[in-house]
Amino acid sequence: MSRLRVLTGITPSGSPHLGNYVGAIRPAVRASRSPDTECFYFLADYHALIKNHDPVRLQRSTLEIAASWMACGLSPEHVAFYRQSDVPQVQELTWLLTCVTGKGLLNRAHAYKAAMDKNAAAGADPDADVTAGLFMYPVLMAADILIFNANRVPVGRDQIQHIEMARDMASSFNHLYGELFALPEAVIDDNVATLPGLDGRKMSKSYDNTIPLFVPRAQLHKLINGIKTDSLPPGAPKSTEGSALFELYQAFATPEETAAFGQAFADGIAWGDAKQALFERVDREIAPMRERYDALMADPSQVEAALLLGAQKVQPMAQDLLIRARAAVGLKPLTQIASAPQKAAKKAAKASFKQYRDEDGQFRFKLVDDAGTVLLQSRGFASPKDAGALVAQLKSGGVTALDAASNDLEVQAEREVLTSALQDFQEH
Amino acid sequence: MSRLRVLTGITPSGSPHLGNYVGAIRPAVRASRSPDTECFYFLADYHALIKNHDPVRLQRSTLEIAASWMACGLSPEHVAFYRQSDVPQVQELTWLLTCVTGKGLLNRAHAYKAAMDKNAAAGADPDADVTAGLFMYPVLMAADILIFNANRVPVGRDQIQHIEMARDMASSFNHLYGELFALPEAVIDDNVATLPGLDGRKMSKSYDNTIPLFVPRAQLHKLINGIKTDSLPPGAPKSTEGSALFELYQAFATPEETAAFGQAFADGIAWGDAKQALFERVDREIAPMRERYDALMADPSQVEAALLLGAQKVQPMAQDLLIRARAAVGLKPLTQIASAPQKAAKKAAKASFKQYRDEDGQFRFKLVDDAGTVLLQSRGFASPKDAGALVAQLKSGGVTALDAASNDLEVQAEREVLTSALQDFQEH
Repeated sequence: MSRLRVLTGITPSGSPHLGNYVGAIRPAVRASRSPDTECFYFLADYHALIKNHDPVRLQRSTLEIAASWMACGLSPEHVAFYRQSDVPQVQELTWLLTCVTGKGLLNRAHAYKAAMDKNAAAGADPDADVTAGLFMYPVLMAADILIFNANRVPVGRDQIQHIEMARDMASSFNHLYGELFALPEAVIDDNVATLPGLDGRKMSKSYDNTIPLFVPRAQLHKLINGIKTDSLPPGAPKSTEGSALFELYQAFATPEETAAFGQAFADGIAWGDAKQALFERVDREIAPMRERYDALMADPSQVEAALLLGAQKVQPMAQDLLIRARAAVGLKPLTQIASAPQKAAKKAAKASFKQYRDEDGQFRFKLVDDAGTVLLQSRGFASPKDAGALVAQLKSGGVTALDAASNDLEVQAEREVLTSALQDFQEH
Repeated sequence: MSRLRVLTGITPSGSPHLGNYVGAIRPAVRASRSPDTECFYFLADYHALIKNHDPVRLQRSTLEIAASWMACGLSPEHVAFYRQSDVPQVQELTWLLTCVTGKGLLNRAHAYKAAMDKNAAAGADPDADVTAGLFMYPVLMAADILIFNANRVPVGRDQIQHIEMARDMASSFNHLYGELFALPEAVIDDNVATLPGLDGRKMSKSYDNTIPLFVPRAQLHKLINGIKTDSLPPGAPKSTEGSALFELYQAFATPEETAAFGQAFADGIAWGDAKQALFERVDREIAPMRERYDALMADPSQVEAALLLGAQKVQPMAQDLLIRARAAVGLKPLTQIASAPQKAAKKAAKASFKQYRDEDGQFRFKLVDDAGTVLLQSRGFASPKDAGALVAQLKSGGVTALDAASNDLEVQAEREVLTSALQDFQEH
């Protein structure tokens, strides 16, 4: 557990363009391969609901964005790649955080204030067209981070405040209920690569000057041919300075290729030839990804399966954290009541192991208290002997045995409850 | 499904007193026995977190309030009696509603405005000490109601606005995403019985004049002996008008007993004798409940088991509604994407039935799509033949067979998905 947890949220809105690829997707996919970090990437579909009330568009965007990241090399096997809405625990944690968050803190959120300013400028009511979703967004974002106790959150400068708010909420909770949450840190990369768009300005959907990442080859060619240039004739030396063509080329090429392209500019390459070279260079990198993307889009069940795999990976972590958060605030079985009468406390301690064969043919056991609450669930074993041996170890070794076998067990109750339940076996 | 659904939330704070019993618990327990309504009673522990940051007190209150209602005759077998936090689906629905709720609506909530007014009077920042929980409370309350499509919500006049807000949110959702929610109606009983307290004013915790519902017999006696009276001597005729003793007696007695007690007042009963009569009459009603209450408090696992039974009853309903709400906003498997390519849509339709024997020894089956998503889950059958027969019926009879067997099945996917999956069997 010593690896840093890095969490990245991806809002499923629209299809990515070359600027998104160079500035966000490509570096994030590279970073995901670092052995020093445990990477979480999630499609923020709950977030998307704040602005997107079109169910078909939301689903379509989720598919496109997930397929894009997978096509660009994000490996669902190596990272946790999941859909936010497959971890409904974040909503429960959102409420627990909502109850320890001052409304004043949310009043100061930039996104909310920007909406109010816009209304003020239009002479409208400050909260006109502001949904409660926009207002509450920082709490949901905090829950996204805190449910996994993520240490690092790579964000743009505009998101720093949200990370600070998440820290505030984590601190409030820790202060009221005891230390539970790690305080996340924003990771700002000030060297985010930006690309020029078709008109030379920064490539951005708001300028309508983008080159989509995954368009058919012919369309990519056509778009690149439409990039604005000056009117210098073939043969005239051209400056690489401020040339959108050159910058785009550089974003995809090696230093050697870039140097050669610069030389070609100095040597007076015709714009048509330069565009052809750019197209070929970009397409060389993108073509294999485009092929994967098209295959994924044609068979959404592959993407769905990848996201379900991610959900399976993160669910136990989210559930574990949530159980601890719930217990901290007092949401736990009444049989675990702190000041309950002696008799009840005694009864509650009488947990028992249940061994069984599951429908997949594997042998499992669980530790259940007398009210039927599952405290501990084992993984499946091929042989009932192995399952039985671990039960025996837990009965004789208590929490020491529990810790030693943590890979074979899914803890579903608080530490102190398990400690007391296991102690009970040693005493009898 | 034609029975009206009536939903009542109970905030777990403190122990109930005689006034709560006469004004709320006793009439609600009586109403719960009506055959015309389907009654939901829940302990609003998520709500309680807004004000209560003491986990032990929260748990203790939950136990006391649950035990009180059970002791007073609420039958966990006949109604749905559950803990709000055992239905985490309400939190997910809360978010879906948050995204269709204007912040302006919440600004106008009475409870929030009262907090602001208090701050203004104290010269403090309007949102000083206001948590986001207080501000968002109306959305959570709407989710509590809408997750079960409850038709009627008995509330005090101070809560009418919250029901109106729930209607607003339901309407917004229905308008944006299609009809899903019934519009709940507030049920106001203007004849709520109030009791005088020890000092003659209305019995209320804020006046510190209450008689707790469940105290030991001797203490009840002592408290009743402490009720304020005038100083008329024995033998002097006494007025029943404005007499706290008389009003308390009346709340527990039959009309005949009340008439006789009124005659005794006119005949000059001594205050000591009147108090003794009151004590005996109250204790006659309460004693058997007190006994049940003490037994429940001594063994919280009984209360826990009752609440888990309630959770089991309401979970499938909440899950069903949530799945439909999620699908409406676009949160559903990518294999069910509306405009997905033909090939994918075809593949997704190939669902299959899986039959298995569960660890409880019962035979079950489920309908699973090719991505592993469970669409339908059967109840347990004692014989594999019965399970197999139902599978055959579903394969040949489609949704007609599905509706006919609705008691044996738990639907986990949208209607249209099931329709298409089952149709597929008929075509092959």
